[in-house]
Amino acid sequence: MPDKPRFKGIILDIDGVLKRGSTPIPGAPETVKKLRELGLKIIFLSNLSTKSREQYVDILRNRIGVDVSPDELVLATSATADYVAKHSKTKKVYFVGHKGLRDELEKAGLIIVDNPEEAEFLVAGSPFDEKGFVTEENKWKFTGAIRAILLAKARFVAVNPDKLFPGPDGKPIPGTGTFLGAITAATGVKPVIIGKPSEEIYRIALGKIGVSPSEVIMVGDQLETDIIPAKKLGLTTVLVLSGLTKREDLEKLDPEKKSMIDYVFEDVSGVLEIVR
Amino acid sequence: MPDKPRFKGIILDIDGVLKRGSTPIPGAPETVKKLRELGLKIIFLSNLSTKSREQYVDILRNRIGVDVSPDELVLATSATADYVAKHSKTKKVYFVGHKGLRDELEKAGLIIVDNPEEAEFLVAGSPFDEKGFVTEENKWKFTGAIRAILLAKARFVAVNPDKLFPGPDGKPIPGTGTFLGAITAATGVKPVIIGKPSEEIYRIALGKIGVSPSEVIMVGDQLETDIIPAKKLGLTTVLVLSGLTKREDLEKLDPEKKSMIDYVFEDVSGVLEIVR
Repeated sequence: MPDKPRFKGIILDIDGVLKRGSTPIPGAPETVKKLRELGLKIIFLSNLSTKSREQYVDILRNRIGVDVSPDELVLATSATADYVAKHSKTKKVYFVGHKGLRDELEKAGLIIVDNPEEAEFLVAGSPFDEKGFVTEENKWKFTGAIRAILLAKARFVAVNPDKLFPGPDGKPIPGTGTFLGAITAATGVKPVIIGKPSEEIYRIALGKIGVSPSEVIMVGDQLETDIIPAKKLGLTTVLVLSGLTKREDLEKLDPEKKSMIDYVFEDVSGVLEIVR
Repeated sequence: MPDKPRFKGIILDIDGVLKRGSTPIPGAPETVKKLRELGLKIIFLSNLSTKSREQYVDILRNRIGVDVSPDELVLATSATADYVAKHSKTKKVYFVGHKGLRDELEKAGLIIVDNPEEAEFLVAGSPFDEKGFVTEENKWKFTGAIRAILLAKARFVAVNPDKLFPGPDGKPIPGTGTFLGAITAATGVKPVIIGKPSEEIYRIALGKIGVSPSEVIMVGDQLETDIIPAKKLGLTTVLVLSGLTKREDLEKLDPEKKSMIDYVFEDVSGVLEIVR
């Protein structure tokens, strides 16, 4: 009788692991296919604060060539919705952000309120669009968020802490973390963060896989956001060099942090060496 | 021969000293008139980040019944324009805020640039209107401010640090300080503040009076923003109880800070006791 396979589940970060910008990383679709054939439960993870799982299924199909079901996706938006739904009593949420976040909150059974003073939770995504404009829907939300906290004592939850992104011209545009800086300055209150580098999004991913952390691999391209929180929860960690971390960066890493990386591979196809 | 008068100039805070909201404080116009008759040079001071001196002349005439010339006004907007004009080489400014600030910057000989990457200075007022909406003109300015700092290494100057104001419904709306929280979170850079409680606005007011600080009185309604910076510069300080500080608050003050108040009066008419 063959040995039982050591790993039953795998969490794949999307950016830097399966795609770079809009470009798929070579070998990624084939690797996903083989992982499925080996019977591993796969979770695809993204810190994006603007899209719902339904929207993201299309991105994965069109940009990476991987067919996934919404159930296999854990996004910062959906993880936030799950967290708030679990902790909320009245279900009333004042929200800042995009349609994708709103859809996930509603799908989780939460009620979006227009009046911040009715909110039990303030859920913050980014009020900025992909060109760096405050969107029409969000132009009063700085005020609404402040009122939810100060007047309704709403609990403050944020999708991710990411302050800057490259815009379409490659230059910086603000993200959720920039908005959080404004609200914390105004109110003195800091949010609970759900997305990476918080461990919360990994807990939610693990819950979906439904096996022990020691039977799950995390594959990511960044030490601080991918490897450290996953290792703290007891997962086996794989750093790939197809994203933001390059081989020469490895030498500069703090030795204690570096010790949290179990395997280093050029790209995601390397994980096939440890799962079969 | 009579003694020389001890005081030659007086700085009058506007809110809480001459008016409360839109309501004039009784006796204020008469007191201003008497101070003029006594030959004192008067400077009217406001931390407002949205109005130019031309606009504010109308507010003083219509809401307080005091005729002033723009030269007698030191606003956070005009003081900021003076500061930047003095320190700038290229005169190129990327600005966030309202028309009143833009007008003051232009009047000071500065050039407003649309492209943040051309800026030598980033001048930040509030991107929010009086109902708490991000204005049409300012909806890309979070991005622009971040790019001015990160890409053009622009020097970051802020009109005031005020985080919250009461809106038309009496509930909080964000001000310049909330915007500053966002930009500092995104860039790690803190601004030079010109408005109260910075001493800079008092230096600019003193410069306009043109006499020694020991010959000037500061009249304000708040310890932290009015009394402390003025006393640090060597002015004689008067706290009035017609604004935010009440008699019962005086007992709770830190003794060292309290010692910075030279006189306490019910309202601004009390200063007539010390000037004649």
